[in-house]
Formats: sequence, structure tokens, C-alpha cells
Amino acid sequence: MRKITLGIIGAGRIGKLHVENLKGLPQVKIKSISDILADSIRDWAADNGIQNVTNNYKDIVNDPEIDAIFICSPTDTHIEIIEEAVKAGKHIFCEKPISFNLGGTIQVLEWVRSSGVKFQTGFNRRFDHNMSRVKELIREGKAGEPHMLKVTSRDPAPPHKEYIKNSGGLFVDMAIHDFDIARFLMDSDVEEVYVQGAVLVDPVFAEFQDIDTAIITLKFENGALGVIHNSRQAHYYDQRVEFFGSAGSITIQNDNPNTAEVYTQNGAYRDNPLHFFLERYKEAYVKEVLSFIDAVVNDTPVPVDANDGYQAELIASAAAISLRERRPVRIEEVVSGLRQKV
Amino acid sequence: MRKITLGIIGAGRIGKLHVENLKGLPQVKIKSISDILADSIRDWAADNGIQNVTNNYKDIVNDPEIDAIFICSPTDTHIEIIEEAVKAGKHIFCEKPISFNLGGTIQVLEWVRSSGVKFQTGFNRRFDHNMSRVKELIREGKAGEPHMLKVTSRDPAPPHKEYIKNSGGLFVDMAIHDFDIARFLMDSDVEEVYVQGAVLVDPVFAEFQDIDTAIITLKFENGALGVIHNSRQAHYYDQRVEFFGSAGSITIQNDNPNTAEVYTQNGAYRDNPLHFFLERYKEAYVKEVLSFIDAVVNDTPVPVDANDGYQAELIASAAAISLRERRPVRIEEVVSGLRQKV
Amino acid sequence: MRKITLGIIGAGRIGKLHVENLKGLPQVKIKSISDILADSIRDWAADNGIQNVTNNYKDIVNDPEIDAIFICSPTDTHIEIIEEAVKAGKHIFCEKPISFNLGGTIQVLEWVRSSGVKFQTGFNRRFDHNMSRVKELIREGKAGEPHMLKVTSRDPAPPHKEYIKNSGGLFVDMAIHDFDIARFLMDSDVEEVYVQGAVLVDPVFAEFQDIDTAIITLKFENGALGVIHNSRQAHYYDQRVEFFGSAGSITIQNDNPNTAEVYTQNGAYRDNPLHFFLERYKEAYVKEVLSFIDAVVNDTPVPVDANDGYQAELIASAAAISLRERRPVRIEEVVSGLRQKV
Amino acid sequence: MRKITLGIIGAGRIGKLHVENLKGLPQVKIKSISDILADSIRDWAADNGIQNVTNNYKDIVNDPEIDAIFICSPTDTHIEIIEEAVKAGKHIFCEKPISFNLGGTIQVLEWVRSSGVKFQTGFNRRFDHNMSRVKELIREGKAGEPHMLKVTSRDPAPPHKEYIKNSGGLFVDMAIHDFDIARFLMDSDVEEVYVQGAVLVDPVFAEFQDIDTAIITLKFENGALGVIHNSRQAHYYDQRVEFFGSAGSITIQNDNPNTAEVYTQNGAYRDNPLHFFLERYKEAYVKEVLSFIDAVVNDTPVPVDANDGYQAELIASAAAISLRERRPVRIEEVVSGLRQKV
Repeated sequence: MRKITLGIIGAGRIGKLHVENLKGLPQVKIKSISDILADSIRDWAADNGIQNVTNNYKDIVNDPEIDAIFICSPTDTHIEIIEEAVKAGKHIFCEKPISFNLGGTIQVLEWVRSSGVKFQTGFNRRFDHNMSRVKELIREGKAGEPHMLKVTSRDPAPPHKEYIKNSGGLFVDMAIHDFDIARFLMDSDVEEVYVQGAVLVDPVFAEFQDIDTAIITLKFENGALGVIHNSRQAHYYDQRVEFFGSAGSITIQNDNPNTAEVYTQNGAYRDNPLHFFLERYKEAYVKEVLSFIDAVVNDTPVPVDANDGYQAELIASAAAISLRERRPVRIEEVVSGLRQKV
Repeated sequence: MRKITLGIIGAGRIGKLHVENLKGLPQVKIKSISDILADSIRDWAADNGIQNVTNNYKDIVNDPEIDAIFICSPTDTHIEIIEEAVKAGKHIFCEKPISFNLGGTIQVLEWVRSSGVKFQTGFNRRFDHNMSRVKELIREGKAGEPHMLKVTSRDPAPPHKEYIKNSGGLFVDMAIHDFDIARFLMDSDVEEVYVQGAVLVDPVFAEFQDIDTAIITLKFENGALGVIHNSRQAHYYDQRVEFFGSAGSITIQNDNPNTAEVYTQNGAYRDNPLHFFLERYKEAYVKEVLSFIDAVVNDTPVPVDANDGYQAELIASAAAISLRERRPVRIEEVVSGLRQKV
Repeated sequence: MRKITLGIIGAGRIGKLHVENLKGLPQVKIKSISDILADSIRDWAADNGIQNVTNNYKDIVNDPEIDAIFICSPTDTHIEIIEEAVKAGKHIFCEKPISFNLGGTIQVLEWVRSSGVKFQTGFNRRFDHNMSRVKELIREGKAGEPHMLKVTSRDPAPPHKEYIKNSGGLFVDMAIHDFDIARFLMDSDVEEVYVQGAVLVDPVFAEFQDIDTAIITLKFENGALGVIHNSRQAHYYDQRVEFFGSAGSITIQNDNPNTAEVYTQNGAYRDNPLHFFLERYKEAYVKEVLSFIDAVVNDTPVPVDANDGYQAELIASAAAISLRERRPVRIEEVVSGLRQKV
Repeated sequence: MRKITLGIIGAGRIGKLHVENLKGLPQVKIKSISDILADSIRDWAADNGIQNVTNNYKDIVNDPEIDAIFICSPTDTHIEIIEEAVKAGKHIFCEKPISFNLGGTIQVLEWVRSSGVKFQTGFNRRFDHNMSRVKELIREGKAGEPHMLKVTSRDPAPPHKEYIKNSGGLFVDMAIHDFDIARFLMDSDVEEVYVQGAVLVDPVFAEFQDIDTAIITLKFENGALGVIHNSRQAHYYDQRVEFFGSAGSITIQNDNPNTAEVYTQNGAYRDNPLHFFLERYKEAYVKEVLSFIDAVVNDTPVPVDANDGYQAELIASAAAISLRERRPVRIEEVVSGLRQKV
């Protein structure tokens, strides 16, 4: 078995999670990790068998021993790192979104296409046991041709103010996962987007021209319809999907921490579903990095590529226009706008 | 106990259903029934203890013994019958929609208001055990202030071509129930409507400028959002609702004919939900007519009045414009248009 | 359609329920009802269209116009009434148990056999939509050959002391329904019974040598095993069944009054199942009397006959011995004991 | 953090599973593993960072560097290994059952008591997320005082003939887990056992005087009742529990691989529950070894001790007598019999 050497850029929550999931794999060696607060992670890195800790990501990008890098740093650093990594011939696993700037993401598409490096976008939910079972059932034709998709995606509680400020807004920060799941399950790109949005959870969202509640209607290129329900506050993590087709429907429910039910004279009680994404998508994060490592080791295509990242950002961009201008917006309109800028 | 005398106008499926539900009530006497095919129902009427059968509804409207009438004839006959019935001082239970013509419905509102007769619109779903439990739980504040409403409403199979032709279209024929449920549960009128519609089930719908699949986004006057999912073909009757609020959510599922589950090496199997509205809303139809009889007997307000009928028709009208013009449409715009016509 | 004339003996809760379910049937006329407190039911009887009220059941048994009688009087009056009714050639619907005395029940079997009158035992649960769906699925072979049956049958709360005193004990009063369901679903008589019983709910049961909690193990003649879980206090009505066979299993759950679920930060909540037998078996009571009327009108076999009543009483009798003597008891042993007495 | 050194005796399926779960723990070093087929596991051991592989377990027991051993060899080797390990002062994690011989298990209890080594019995199910949530809810008094316990425990398919022959029979091989869960959840020892058993799945069980289907009734010392349903063939792994108490009930269902449901005109379909114990109790196996390591590192009591192993074996022994002699058997009777032998 070929063994590949990895570098991790960014040791925040998600960077550390990937290290946790990667470190035990026999086909992988994590050689280096970079973080602007390098000193604070030295002990943790040593405990996890990582030799080098640096505060300069270039040390990783320029290390000829490193085959592939994981980009887990803040979104506004992605483009610069990707550019250098592609030049250095590294394979790239990049957290979503690729950038806050569609122009930048288009450049990434170009760099990846011309260089031949592998580039995987971090849409972990495709690897969820429920989502992937729905995909399988759709592929097997169990519910026939696609007519409607319903995605419910709600966080337990809003993030703190500082996070909201730099999040890029609900569409890019939160709904982007749902845009990807929608394309994945419907096996079709999106043609048109319409958003009804509101600030109902916390007025702080209005301060940043953001919203906390949204109903996003999608029209797919294959003619089917879709709708995404987002909220920043459901009190638990609400992640459900319903595929409706010509022959029937396929639904998934939330995952629960246990199956216990209590019946008393006061009615029936169950615990809430798993609290948040780290619990619900725990295994999906493992499968996601495995799929990338497999693609690198065996030189096969990655399952979620740069275009998948781009398409989701296009939808987010159209959604932002729809919210602002209170009208349905065609993806083609966004793409044309980009062409004109160039 | 005061006993009231009833006349039924129209002995189609729904007229007969109301007779079935009314005939055993001790506070009620069904004296007469009219139908254009009077001869074909004489035996059935006799079996159900109805003395008079006529092919002329005026015999009922003009009968001074009759206190209240049920209008179950085709929608395009409603206005004329209502006008005469109100003049004759009869209380009225009228099937939905009141009319295909918002101007007509406004007249009905006026006649009812000025005459003081009771007028109930036949939105039976409000009386469903699931829907009314959701309403109760919302009233008790279990899920807090309203943020989003999700209504799934799909028929098992499309009606036949002749029915489609005269149905008034998906919004008035099918979604109108959902518009009413939305107003009922959210305790708020609708402010704006946006429709994504498609013909995915059967091209015959396109022949009549109708659709068979729709995602209808609502904005309520209270600031909350809503969405209705309609399809003419779900293979079973799909009637679910999810209320999402500041403190949590309330969902209802479909009713099943039994709770049996079979587990074999091939997986787990259950029967489908109840097939269609006659099965699912069986008890709701009973409670609906009881509520009207109670209101007449005790001279209390009806639970679903003419304005409820009018509001649902307004939403249907805005939905039709939205579909045609591919833009969100405000209810106020429809109301202004009506004023200008007058 | 032939119309049959009925007399009802006993106007307690169950007698009144049968009247309610019978009165609207076109093929039936309820002519008379008897009750020791005849005066107290005259108004109710008139309201329900019953002409004659008597305090002497013989007035009914001896009325030549009456085709069939419903015996809803206390169990200790059954034998005498049945004897006279059979002599008078009446068809009989008799509430369970037929008697508190196996010798008496054997006589009933003999009378019915020799006279040719129809005799239905009031095991209403066979007509429950869930139970009958399980039976169908078993018949279709969905779960293969029978291996085990699990019956959970628990009342919401214990009856009052006076009822307990005269109930005949848990086996005859409560578990007898479960014995019948077990025979019905397994399509086999019982060969052996073992009981573990306890007084855990209320010490008052011990005063009458009764128990309130039991686990009853059954061995069927077809070689399969079964177990019944009884309690007098579940806080709601717990009526579930699980058939386990060579090819899989079939389960039914409790029926719920609605499907509403509430999710808040404190977990998920549902209302309890339907409270007690009048709610849960409402439709089963209707179907039960319909099946009897059909058998009489069309001269076809009744679906639950006197032998079904006898077999359930045999099991109850064996259960009582098992509890007293703390050992498994074969049905054959009870039958032999009866033969010796005779 | 103190680090402890481990030796593993037996590298079959369960030995390898424990290595997999132990190897990543920072507080643990697995130094040696023994197996009679030592050569066949050398590569696997090296891959998992174990230095020594031996075919003689004494090399492990006598290694002064080793703090604790895992006994995963066949049951009939346990007593001898435990005796030597206790003498050598090793802490012991021992797979269930401790022995096929109650006399031997009593000796183990004695050795452990007098030596002070820690001894954990491998009842992994106590650590299952569902089982432990039920335990918590019982402890919190959610369902009141214990009245009944219902354990359903069925394997997907029978083991092969050679396994059956050496398994010790259904009670010791399979139901022993259920006996332990029953004691754990009811927080009470068992007083009496009655078994109804049958060979319904495969006649091969009869060849070894074994059964494949059983209903085991328990009476607990606290007065409550219990029942265990076992089958060797459910086509999937059926592991459910219902605690029924004075204030209500607590149930757990099977764990499913996903929550997907498919609805078509042919009804509703779900995948079967997780297939077998390696899938269902995956996390329980991890938590089980963690709990033992914690007890050793922190010198705290083990959560499942030698007496827990003994008590389950006592129940199994009483069950075997009950099956043979077709009568309820008191645990005290088994204990007295043991005393007389000694």
C-alpha cells in the first residue's frame, strides 16, 4: 500500500477533527500542521504524532515530502493558499466555501483543471449514512423520476455575534451545505432560486444585513422543484430530507442519541435528536477524508470536486440577489454577470 | 333541545356524505334534498329518512319550514343559490370554494354581513384530530411564536380529465384547503405569495393551463414564513404539517389504517397511510357539520366563516398571478385590483 | 334484505354500547331491552327508538317476534338466560366470559350444538383493525410458521374494589381476552400454561386472592410458545401484539389519538395512546355486532363461537391452578378434572 | 497520567476486537498477545503495534511488566488462566461466561476477593447507549418502582453446528447476556426461573440437547417479574427492552443503520435494524474496555465484577434445570446444591 504524507493548514475545530480522523489510517502520515497560534497546539500535535508545527503555511506548501494538504484556515485565506499549493503540485482537500468571492472560485477551478491536482471540497454531508442511503435509493429508482426535494436544515442555536459578522451570511455559511445536498440528491444543477427570508430569531442578524430564517425555493435544470427550510435556532440540530418522485417518496429523519421512550400518565417522552453537526456528522467526517485519501492513493477522481464547490456558491450568490431584490433569480444571470466582470 | 330543519342542495359525493353524518343527530331533521338528477336518488333519500326530493333547489330555499341549507352543488351555482337563500333568511353551510370569482365572493360577504344569517365555509380539515391538536398545542404556546409553517398536501392520483377541466385549477381546487389550514394554524392572514409550479405528473394539466406540482411560498402578516408542497400524485394521501416556532416545533404525520409492521430478511414493511380524503378526514366531516348545527341551534358564531372562504380565494388568486408572471405577488395587489374593478 | 328483530338483556355500559352500534343498521330492529333498573333507562331507550323496556328478561326471551338476543347482564346470570333463550330458539350474542363455571360453559356448548341456534362470544378484539391486519399478514405467510407470540395487555388503572370482588379474578376478567387473541392469532389451542403473578399495584387485590400483575407463559398445541403480560395499571391502555415466526415478525403498536409531536429544548413529546377499551376498540365493537347480524341474516357461521368462549375459560382455569400451585398446568389436566366431576 | 501495560490472551474475533478498541488509548500499551495459532497473527499484531506474540499464555501471565490481562480464549481455559493470573497479581478482564462450571466460578470469586485484583466480566451490553439510557431513566425514577421487565434478544441466524456443540447451550451462550441485563436494569438478583423452550428453528439443536427458542420467566428478589424472549433466528439482531413500573414504562427499540423510509404504492419500506452484535454493540465494546482501564488506572471498582458473572451463571443453571424438569426453579435451590457438593 502506498503511504501518503499530509500537511494540515489551520488547527481550529475542523482542522483538529480531520487530524483525529486521519491519524489512525495506515495509508497516511500527517507530517506537519500550521496555525497562526502555533505554540498553543504543540502539545496536542505531539500527542497526535505530528512532527512539525509551524505558524507559516508556506512551510507546508513548500515541503517536497508532502503529497496533499488539508486547508482548514479561515475562508478568506483559501485562494492564496490554493494558488501556491497547486503550483507546488499538492493535492488539496479544502473546507467549504472555497471562497467568499465567485471570481476567486472560478480561478481555483481553472488552476485545478490545468494542473491536474486533486481538489476535494469539504461537503461532508454527502457521506452521512442517511444522505447516502437516500442517494442509493434514488439511484435504484425506488421513487422514480425526481419531482420535488424538501431539505430541512436548522441549527440548534445561533452562533455568537463575531462569528455572524464574518460568516458571509446564511447562504454561504449555512445553506451552502443544503445547496450541495440538493444538487447531489437531484443529480441536477439549479436553474433558478427564490428566497423568502426573515429575521425572527435574533435582531443581531439584521445588523449585518443577514437573516436567520429562510425558505429557499429552487428550480432544477431537470425541471423538478426544491425547497430548503433554514433556521438558526431549532433548539436541536434538524437535518431532514424528503425526495419526492414519480413513483413515491424517500424520507430521512433526524438521528437520535438513543431509542428510549418513556410513557407516563403525562404522555410519551423521547430525548432530542443529536445536538449538532459534530455529533450528527461524526462518521460522515471520517468517510469524507477517507474518500479523499483513497482518491489520492489510487489516483481516482475525488467524489466532491471544485465544481461542486463553485455550483453551491453560485446558488448562494443568486439567493443573496433574490433576497435583496425580492424576485426569483436565474443562475444564468449570475454567471453572465461574472463573465461581464472578467 | 331545539330541533332544526335542513335542506340539502346537491346530492353528489359530498352532499351524500353530509346526509350520512347529519341523519342520526337528534337535533336535526333533514326534510328535503335537491339534485338535477332527482329521480336517481329517490330510493337513497327514502332509506335515509328524507321526505322530499326535488330537482329544483328553489323548492328548498323557499320552504319556510327549513332553517338551514347545505350547498353541495357545483361551484358555479353557489352565488345564485346563496343570494336567494340569504334573502329567504336561511343559514348556510357552503362547500369550498364559495365561488370561482372573487367579485362574487365579496358579494357573499356583504349579503351575509348585512343579513345576519350564519354562513359556514366547508373547510373540513380544521376539524381533523391531528390539525386541531396542532392548533391547541400552538395556542398553548408549546412551540413559541410562529416562524415557519410547512404544509405537505398531495393527492394519491390525479382526477380524470373532465374534472381537471372544470376544477378551477390546482390553487382553487386543491391548495385552497392548504391556504385555509395555513391561516388557521398561523392565526394570521397572508401578505405575499410566490409559486414555483410544474407539470411533471401528466401533460393533460398543461392543456388547461393548469399544473400538477407546486411549491408555494407564503409570507404572513405576522412576519412568519410558510411553504406548501402540492402534488396531484403521491400514490397515497399525504397530509402533513409542521409548525416551527421560537421555542420548538410541532409536527403531524399521516394517519395509518393500522400499526402493523412486518420484519423479514428483506427489511421492514408497513401499509401505506389512509388512501384519500374520505378516509383521512372521515371524522373531520362529522365534526364540521356538528359545529355548524351547534352554531345554528345555540346562535353562536360559526367556526369557519365567509371571510375564511374569501381569504383562501384571495391567496389562490395571488398564486395564479405569481405562476403566470413568475414573481412574488402581494395579497394587497389582488385586493386593490378588485377595488378598481368595482 | 331480511330484517331481524333484536332484544337486549342488560343495559349497563356494554349493553348501551351495543344499542348505539346496532340502532342505525337498516337490517336490524331493536324491539326490547331489559334491565333490573328498567325505569332508569326508559328515556334513553325511547331516544334510541326501542319500544319496550322491561325489568324481566323473560319478556324478551319469550317474545316470538324476537330473532336474536344480546346478553349483556352480569356473568352469573348468563347460564340461566342462555338455557331459556336456546329453548326459545333465539340466536345469541353473549358477552365474555360465558360463565364463571366451566361446567356451565360445557352445558352451553351442548345446548348450542344440539339446538342449532347461532351463538357468538363477545371477543371484540378479534375485530380490531390492528389485530385483524396481523391475522391477515399471518395467513398470507408473511412471517412464516409460528414460533412465539407476545401479548401486552395492560389497563390504565385498576377497577374499584367492588368490581374487583365480583370480577372472577384477573384471568377471567381481563386475561381472557388475551387468551382468545392468542388462540386466534396462533390458530392453535393451548396445551400448557404457567403463571408468575404478583400484587404490585394495589394490596386490595390480595384481599380477594387476586393479583394485579402477571406474566403468563403459554405452550400451544402446534409447538409454538407464547407469553402474555398483564397489569392492572399502565396509566394508559397498552394493547400490543408481536407474532414471531420462522420468516420474520409482525408487530402492532398502540393506537394514538393523534400524530402530533412537539420538539423543544426539553426533548420530544407525544400524547399517550388512546385511554381505554371504549376508545381503542370503538370500531371493533361495531364490526363485532355487524358480524353477528350478518351471520344471522345470511345463516352463515358466527366468527367467534361458544367453543372459543370455552377454550379461553379453560386457559383461565389452568392459569388459576398454576398460580395457586406454582407449577405449569396442562389444559388436558383441567379437561380431565371436568370429566371426572361429570 | 499513569500508563498501564496489557497482555491479551486469545486472538479470536473478540480478542482482536478488544485490541482494535484499546490500541489508540494514550493510557494503555498492549505489550503481548498469545494465541495457539501464534504464527497466523504475527503480521496483524505488528500492524497494531504489539511487540510480542506467543503461543503460550504463561509468557503473558508471568511477565512482570504486564499490569492487566484480557482473557479472550475459549471458556474452558478460563479457570486455569485466571488462577495463575490472580497469583501473579494481574488485573483481569474476562469474557463471559467465566466458566461452564459454577464450582469453578465460585473459586474465581474467592480468588478475586482474597487477592484484591480487579476482575471485570465482559458483559458489554450494559455499556450500550440504549441500555445505559434506560438504566439512567430508571434511576431517575421516571417509571417508578419496578413491576415487570421484558427483554427481547434474538440472533439473526443460528451459529454453525460445531459452535452449537461447544457453546454450553442457549442459556450460557446467549441468554447469559440477558440475565445480566435483567439484573442490571432491575437492580435486583433473581429468585426463581421458569423456562418454556423449544426446537423450532433447526433440529440440530436437539442433537445436543439444546433449544433454539425460549421464553424465560424470572421472579426477582424485589418482587418484580421478568421475561426474556430468545430465538436463534430472527433474520436480524433483535435487542429490545421494556421496563414497566408503578409510574409508567420505558422502552428501547432496535438501532437502525439509517432512517430512510420509502413510500410507494406498495406500502412503506425501511431497512432492517443493524445486523448483529458487532454492529449494534460497537460502541458498547469500546466503553466496556475503557471502563476497565479506568478502574485499573484510577484504582476504582470495576462496573461489572466477578459476582455479576456468577449471578448470571446461576440463573443459567437454574434455567437448565427448569427446562429439563419442566418446573420453576429457585436460585436458592441451585446455590444449596453447590454447597452440598462442596
